[in-house]
Amino acid sequence: MNFTKMHGLGNDFIVVKGLEEDIQTIIKNAKKICDRHFGVGADGILLVLPSDAADIKMRIINSDGSEAPMCGNGVRCFASFVYKKGIVAKKNMTVETIAGIQRPEIIMKDDIVTAIKVDIGTYSFLNQDIPVEGEPDKEAKNLEIKIDENLFEATGVDMGNPHCVIFTDDVEKVPLEKWGPKIENYPLFPLKTNVEFVQVISKDHLKMRVWERGCGITMACGTGACAVAAAAFEKGFTGKQVKVTLPGGDLFIELTDDKRVYMTGPAQEVFEGHLELEKIC
Amino acid sequence: MNFTKMHGLGNDFIVVKGLEEDIQTIIKNAKKICDRHFGVGADGILLVLPSDAADIKMRIINSDGSEAPMCGNGVRCFASFVYKKGIVAKKNMTVETIAGIQRPEIIMKDDIVTAIKVDIGTYSFLNQDIPVEGEPDKEAKNLEIKIDENLFEATGVDMGNPHCVIFTDDVEKVPLEKWGPKIENYPLFPLKTNVEFVQVISKDHLKMRVWERGCGITMACGTGACAVAAAAFEKGFTGKQVKVTLPGGDLFIELTDDKRVYMTGPAQEVFEGHLELEKIC
Repeated sequence: MNFTKMHGLGNDFIVVKGLEEDIQTIIKNAKKICDRHFGVGADGILLVLPSDAADIKMRIINSDGSEAPMCGNGVRCFASFVYKKGIVAKKNMTVETIAGIQRPEIIMKDDIVTAIKVDIGTYSFLNQDIPVEGEPDKEAKNLEIKIDENLFEATGVDMGNPHCVIFTDDVEKVPLEKWGPKIENYPLFPLKTNVEFVQVISKDHLKMRVWERGCGITMACGTGACAVAAAAFEKGFTGKQVKVTLPGGDLFIELTDDKRVYMTGPAQEVFEGHLELEKIC
Repeated sequence: MNFTKMHGLGNDFIVVKGLEEDIQTIIKNAKKICDRHFGVGADGILLVLPSDAADIKMRIINSDGSEAPMCGNGVRCFASFVYKKGIVAKKNMTVETIAGIQRPEIIMKDDIVTAIKVDIGTYSFLNQDIPVEGEPDKEAKNLEIKIDENLFEATGVDMGNPHCVIFTDDVEKVPLEKWGPKIENYPLFPLKTNVEFVQVISKDHLKMRVWERGCGITMACGTGACAVAAAAFEKGFTGKQVKVTLPGGDLFIELTDDKRVYMTGPAQEVFEGHLELEKIC
C-alpha cells in the first residue's frame, strides 16, 4: 500500500489512492493500520475514489474501523492531496461524501497551496436542531450548567452535531479533562455534546479548547471552531470573520447572512510511505 | 530523509541510515519527527552509523530529543535492520552503543529472521546495586511496601536500572496507573524504580505489566522482563528459561549460572517512508 501521511491542525490521516490499492483489505484492517505503535498511526484513512456524482469521492475510515460521513480537517487534506497530485486539476472541486457533495476550494499564493476553504453547512441555535431539552423553536442561548460548584452560562449550537459553547477569561486555566466529560453527558443534551471553552482575544480572534463527544480532548475540531464563531458573533463579541486558535493551529471562520459557515485552514503532507499490508494484516 | 519504521513489541522506532542523511538536522528535530500527529510518530530514532570499535554503531535519539545509552527493543530492531539490508552480513554482530559493545544474534528459521537474541548484562539483588535503602551487601528480596491499605512483598532487582518486582495472582486486576507512580517514588528507592507486577502462569511462563520509571505504563520493557525472570527464578517459581508475556507481546529470557541474562524477541518492520525534513523542521 502506497500512502501519503497528512494532517490538518494535527488531526492526521493516511491518504490512499483507492483505485491502486486493495481497499477491502485496508478497510478491514483500518484499526491495525492506524495503530500508532504497531501500524502507520493516524486518526483515520482517507480513500480517494472515482465518483459519478462529483469530481472525486472521499471515504473516511476511522481508526476504529467505522466509516465517518464527513470531517472538516479530513476534507482539507483530501482536497489538497488530489489537487497537488493532479488527480483533480480544479481549484473549485466537488467531492462526494456520505454527507453529500462537499465543495472545497484550494487557496493559492505564489503557486503554492496555502489553505483550503470548506463549506461546513449552516448553524442553528434551536433546541430541536442541536438537540437540547426544552421547548421547540426556542434558542439554546442561555443554558445553565452546574458542574460541581461551578455555574456556567452556555450556548447550544447545532453544526450538524451538537456543541456546548462556554465563554471564559482564560482557556488555559480550564480543567477540561475534568469538566469536559461531565458537560458531554449533562442531561440537557439527549445525544450528548461536544464541549468548547472559548476566550475572546479581540473582535476578530478567538482562542478555544475542545472536548470532543466520544473522543475527549483533541487538538482541533472543525465544527467546534464553527460553533464557537457562531456563538461569539451572536453574543456580539466578534464579527462575521474570525480567526479561531485551537491547540493544533488556526482556522479562519466566515459566517454568512443565511447562517452558512465557511472554514479555511491548512493541510500538510508529512511523508510518503509504502507498507506491505501482509506484514501487519 | 528515507527511513524504515520498526517496532519491538510495540516499542517503535524510526530507523535511519546515518551516512545517507543529515543527522544533525534529524537529531535537532527529533521531537518534531517523533510527534505522532505532526511528524512520523515513534518512541525514538535509531541512527545507523559506521564504527571503529564494532561492526556497526547505533545511536538512540529519544522522542524528547535526548540520547539513550541502550534499549533492548531498539537493539533488536537495529540488528534486524542492518542484517536484512545487508549492511552487516553476520548473524553474530557487534554493535557499538554509549553503553558499550552489544552482541545481538540474528535467529533464523527457513531463511527468515524470526527473532533477535541480546545479552542484556547481569542481574543483582544487592541493595547498593539497585539501589535500595538498607545495609550494603544484603539482598533486597523481601522488601515491604505499603501503598494505601495494601501491603506488598517485593523483590528489588538491578538490571543496570532499578526494578521493583511484585508477584500477584492476576496482573489484569492490578490498578497499575494508581500504584505504579506511588511505588516508583517509594522512599526505599533513592533513584526511583521501575515497577513490575507479575503472575506465574507455569514453571516456564510469566505474565507481567510494567510501570516504567519516568514514562508510566508501557507495552514492553526489556530490562523489566529480565528482572521479573530473575526474581521468579530466585523464588523457585520458574526455571532458568522462561517466556514472559508483556502487553506488547512475548520475550524469551534465559538466565545463566553467572547471573547473565539473554533476551530473545521479535523485531518487525512496518513500513518504508520518505520525509522532506524541511516540511516539518
